[in-house]
Amino acid sequence: MAPLTISEYPPELSSEEEQYLLSNLKDWSIAHGLAVRPAPSFVSSSQDPSGVLATTAPVTLFPSLFPRVCFEAGLALQTAYNELYAAIARDERWLQGIVEELIDIDDFVEKLWQTHLAVKKEGYVQNLSLGLFRSDYMVHSDSSKSDSSPGLRQVEFNTIASSFGGLSSLVSALHRYLLTIDAYPSSTAGIIKAEALRQSKSTSSLAQGLAAAHKAYGTSRSGKPLCVLFVVQDPERNVFDQRHLEYALLEESGVRSFRLPFHRTLTDTKLDSDRNLLYAPPNSPSTEYEVTTVYFRAGYTPDDYPREEDWTARLQLEKSRAIKCPSILTHLAGCKKVQQVLATPHSPHLKRFLPDESVASRVLETFAPIYPLDDSEAGREAKKLAQDPATAVRYVLKPQREGGGNNIYRKAIPPFLKNLPETHWPAYILMEMIEPPPLRNAILRNGELQRGGVICELGVYGVCLWRNGTSEDDKGEILQNWEAGYLLRTKGDQSEEGGVAAGFGAVDSCCLV
Amino acid sequence: MAPLTISEYPPELSSEEEQYLLSNLKDWSIAHGLAVRPAPSFVSSSQDPSGVLATTAPVTLFPSLFPRVCFEAGLALQTAYNELYAAIARDERWLQGIVEELIDIDDFVEKLWQTHLAVKKEGYVQNLSLGLFRSDYMVHSDSSKSDSSPGLRQVEFNTIASSFGGLSSLVSALHRYLLTIDAYPSSTAGIIKAEALRQSKSTSSLAQGLAAAHKAYGTSRSGKPLCVLFVVQDPERNVFDQRHLEYALLEESGVRSFRLPFHRTLTDTKLDSDRNLLYAPPNSPSTEYEVTTVYFRAGYTPDDYPREEDWTARLQLEKSRAIKCPSILTHLAGCKKVQQVLATPHSPHLKRFLPDESVASRVLETFAPIYPLDDSEAGREAKKLAQDPATAVRYVLKPQREGGGNNIYRKAIPPFLKNLPETHWPAYILMEMIEPPPLRNAILRNGELQRGGVICELGVYGVCLWRNGTSEDDKGEILQNWEAGYLLRTKGDQSEEGGVAAGFGAVDSCCLV
Repeated sequence: MAPLTISEYPPELSSEEEQYLLSNLKDWSIAHGLAVRPAPSFVSSSQDPSGVLATTAPVTLFPSLFPRVCFEAGLALQTAYNELYAAIARDERWLQGIVEELIDIDDFVEKLWQTHLAVKKEGYVQNLSLGLFRSDYMVHSDSSKSDSSPGLRQVEFNTIASSFGGLSSLVSALHRYLLTIDAYPSSTAGIIKAEALRQSKSTSSLAQGLAAAHKAYGTSRSGKPLCVLFVVQDPERNVFDQRHLEYALLEESGVRSFRLPFHRTLTDTKLDSDRNLLYAPPNSPSTEYEVTTVYFRAGYTPDDYPREEDWTARLQLEKSRAIKCPSILTHLAGCKKVQQVLATPHSPHLKRFLPDESVASRVLETFAPIYPLDDSEAGREAKKLAQDPATAVRYVLKPQREGGGNNIYRKAIPPFLKNLPETHWPAYILMEMIEPPPLRNAILRNGELQRGGVICELGVYGVCLWRNGTSEDDKGEILQNWEAGYLLRTKGDQSEEGGVAAGFGAVDSCCLV
Repeated sequence: MAPLTISEYPPELSSEEEQYLLSNLKDWSIAHGLAVRPAPSFVSSSQDPSGVLATTAPVTLFPSLFPRVCFEAGLALQTAYNELYAAIARDERWLQGIVEELIDIDDFVEKLWQTHLAVKKEGYVQNLSLGLFRSDYMVHSDSSKSDSSPGLRQVEFNTIASSFGGLSSLVSALHRYLLTIDAYPSSTAGIIKAEALRQSKSTSSLAQGLAAAHKAYGTSRSGKPLCVLFVVQDPERNVFDQRHLEYALLEESGVRSFRLPFHRTLTDTKLDSDRNLLYAPPNSPSTEYEVTTVYFRAGYTPDDYPREEDWTARLQLEKSRAIKCPSILTHLAGCKKVQQVLATPHSPHLKRFLPDESVASRVLETFAPIYPLDDSEAGREAKKLAQDPATAVRYVLKPQREGGGNNIYRKAIPPFLKNLPETHWPAYILMEMIEPPPLRNAILRNGELQRGGVICELGVYGVCLWRNGTSEDDKGEILQNWEAGYLLRTKGDQSEEGGVAAGFGAVDSCCLV
C-alpha cells in the first residue's frame, strides 16, 4: 500500500478496517474507563433511573497531527505560565484594578471579589494555594507572512476546574494500543509510529499535585483524620475523568478524598472555631474529617450559584484553613480580562510578573494580540483595525463578560460597530484570529461516527503550589511547579460543508510531525 | 455501633449508606472495566445499534462470607484437579468407554467424538494441550451428621470456556476498594477486613497460561508472525471478561491475539500444507498470522453449531498444529458423565488417574456421591435410595444429557420414577444434594438492587499445559501446572419468599470467616 502523505491523513478506511478499529476502540475504552455517562438525549433518566449505563467518551479514531516543535514548546513553557499566574494571584492590588474594570459588566466577577473581601476582612488563615492549571493553545499559521512556520497561540488559561486530565492519559494510551494491534492501515506506518505518539501523564501528575498540597497542609489540628474534598457538580456526566484523579490520589499517594456536590456544602461541611474545615460524610456523619485541600470541579460558572446560600457556601470554603485549588484570587486571575490585559500590544504587565526577560518573551510569543476598544493608545489603534474591512477580516470581536459567547467574526465587525453607539464599544475586545492549519479526523460520539475538518486545541496541564505573601515586603514564594501532561481536544471546524458537528469536542492525542 | 454477628451479615444500610456505597460501586466498576454490554431487555439494539453502551457487571454489594478452611482447601486442591483432568484427557481408550455410553443419548458428544476420530485418522500433529480449567464448588454442611463442619463439594469441572476470570480479579479489587473508602458500615469492621478479603489473580494468571502455550509452540514454521486466537461467540455481552485476558496477554507477555467469531472460522482461517493454522485478519487479509494457540470461548454448546459447516470449522481447528485450549479430548473430559463416573461410590477410576493415594483421597472428599440408575451394584443401591421418600429427600435426579436441565428434586423423585418405565432410568443419574449454609447478600443488576438469600459457588481456576502420549509406553507428561486464582459466583437461593431473582448470578469475592 502506498504510504500516506501528511495532507492525505487520516486514511480512508475500508469497512473491514473501520469495523476492526471501532470494535477494538469501543471495547478498550470501556475496559479502561475512557467513558462518560450517556447524554439524556441518548439514554433518558427514566430508562436508567439509577445511572448504571456508560458509554465511550467522545474520542477521535486517529491521533491528530501536531507540529512537534509546537508541542515541545507548549510543554516547555508550562512552568513559566504557572509562575505567571501564581504571581498574578499573589498580587491583590493589581487584580483589584482588573476587577474594577469589570464590576459594572460582570456580576459573577463582582460576587467573587466580594467573597474575597469578606474573607480578607476576617483575615486569611491559609497562605498556601494550589493551582491545577491548563493552558490551551491552537497552532497558528500566519499565511500573510512569508515565513509561515507554525507557532502556538494561547486560546485561554484555565485556573479552575481544568478538566479532562483523567481521560487524556487514557486516550493517548488508546491510540498507542490501536497502533500496537495494527488497527491503523499500513499506509500510515510512516506517520503513526510509537516515536510520534505522546503519552499524557496528566492523571498521575495532577493527582500528585493534590497530594503535594495535602502534605503541605501539615498535621491535623482538630485531631480528626485528613482528607481532600472534590467539590463537584451533581449530576456530572464527566464523572470518570474526575474519578481517575481520585483513584490515582488514593493508590499512588494513599490520600483519602470525598466528592462533595457543591449544593451540599453547607449541609456536609462546617468551620470549627479554629476555622478548620470539617467534612461529615453523609453515610457516616459521626466520622468527621479535616479537609486539607478543596479541589473545585464546580463553582466556576454562575449556574452553580442559583441560590444566595451557594455564595455563603463558597465563602465558607474560602474562609477555611483548607488549601483551595484554586483560591478565589487564583480563580479571578483566570478571567478573560487578565488574558486581554497581558496580551495587549506594548502591555507593561507581563514583565511585572515575569521579571526574567527571556522567559517573558517566550510567553509573549504565544499571545494572540488583544486590543481594548477604548480611548487608550492601543484602543485607538484597535478601532481603526476593526472598522476597516481590509484588516477586520483577521480579527474577532468578543464581549468582555466571562463566558459571553456571541462573538462577531471578521467582515461582520465593521457593520456591527457601525450600529453600536461608541460608548458601548469598551464592553468588547478585539482579538487577532488564530489561523489553525487544515486538519481532518473522525470522531466517535454516542455511537455515531463523524468525519470531516477539525480544529485541535492543545491543553498543557501545570501544577503549582505557592505561599502567598504576608506583607509588602514578602511577596510569597513558589514551593512546587511542574508541567503535568497534556490534553488534545478536537472539534469540528464548523465548515458549512457538513463533517464533524460544529463546536463538538472529543478527546484526542498528539501524533507529532 | 454494635458489631455485627456473622448471622446478621450483611448489615442493613441506611439510605445514605446505600447511596454512598452504590455511587462508589457504580463509578469504580465502569472506571475499571468491571462491565458487560447491557442485555437487550435493558437497552435495545435499535437504541444503540453500534453497541457503545455498557453497564456495571452484575455484582454483589458485599463480599460473601466463605469458610476460610474451605477456601484454602479449594485452592490447594487445584493442581491435583489439573493433573486429574490432564490425565483423563490423555487416556483416549478410557474416554471412549465414557463416550460409548453417551452416544445414544447425546448427539453433541457424538459429534465431538467423531471430530476426534477424523483428526486421529489423519494423525494429530500437535501433542501439546492447554487447559484453562475451573473447578466449581459449593460449601456443604451435612446437617444430618453431628460433625457438621463445612466442606467443599464439587458442582462441576469446566474444561472449556471457563469464564469470569477477567472480571473476578476486578470484583475482589472492588470490594477491597469499598472497604478502603469506608463504604461498609463500621459495624462490619470485625468481619470485612483487609486480612479477610482475597484478591483473585485470575486475569493475570490465566493470561500467563496462554502465554506459556504460545511460547511452548515454538518458532513459526510458515515464516509468518505468531498469534493466539480467541474463538468467540458473536455478539458477546461478556466481552470485557475476555478482553481483560487479551490485554493482560499483550501487556504482560507481549503476545498478540485476535478475536475470531466462531462462525467466521472457515472464512478467516486456513490450514497450509504443513497443517499450520493461518489466520487472515479481515481488516488486513494479506498480513497472515500463524496461530500458536486456539482459545475456545465458543464451541462448547450445540447452539454454536447451527450449520454443518460449523463442525467442519471445528475439525479444521482441531486438525491444525495450533495448541488447542482445550483439545477435543479435554473438552470431552469435562462431560458431566465423567464427573458421574468418578464420583460413583467405590469407583475404581480415580486411582487410575491419580496414583498418589493421599492426593486422590483429598480430591475424593470434594465429590458429592453420584449414582447411575442401572443394574450395577451402585445402580441397585441408587434405585433403593431414589424410591424411598425418606432417603430421596437428600438427592436430585439429573438427565445424563449435557446441559440437560429439568432436574427432579427430593420428594418429587419417587413419584417421577413410578411414572417412568424402568428401561428409561439409565438416562438419569442420582446425585446427593449439596446443602449450602444459609447466606444473604445484595446484588446490583441492570441498576436494580436485589436482596435476599443467596447461594455461593467458588470456582478455582487452574492452568495446565501437558504433552500427550505418543504410544502405550509414553503417557505424556505435565509441563506446567498451577492454581490460577478464584471466582465467587453468587445467585438467589430460589426461595419462594422473594429476594434475589432465582437462578441469577453475580460476580462476588470471598470474605473469609
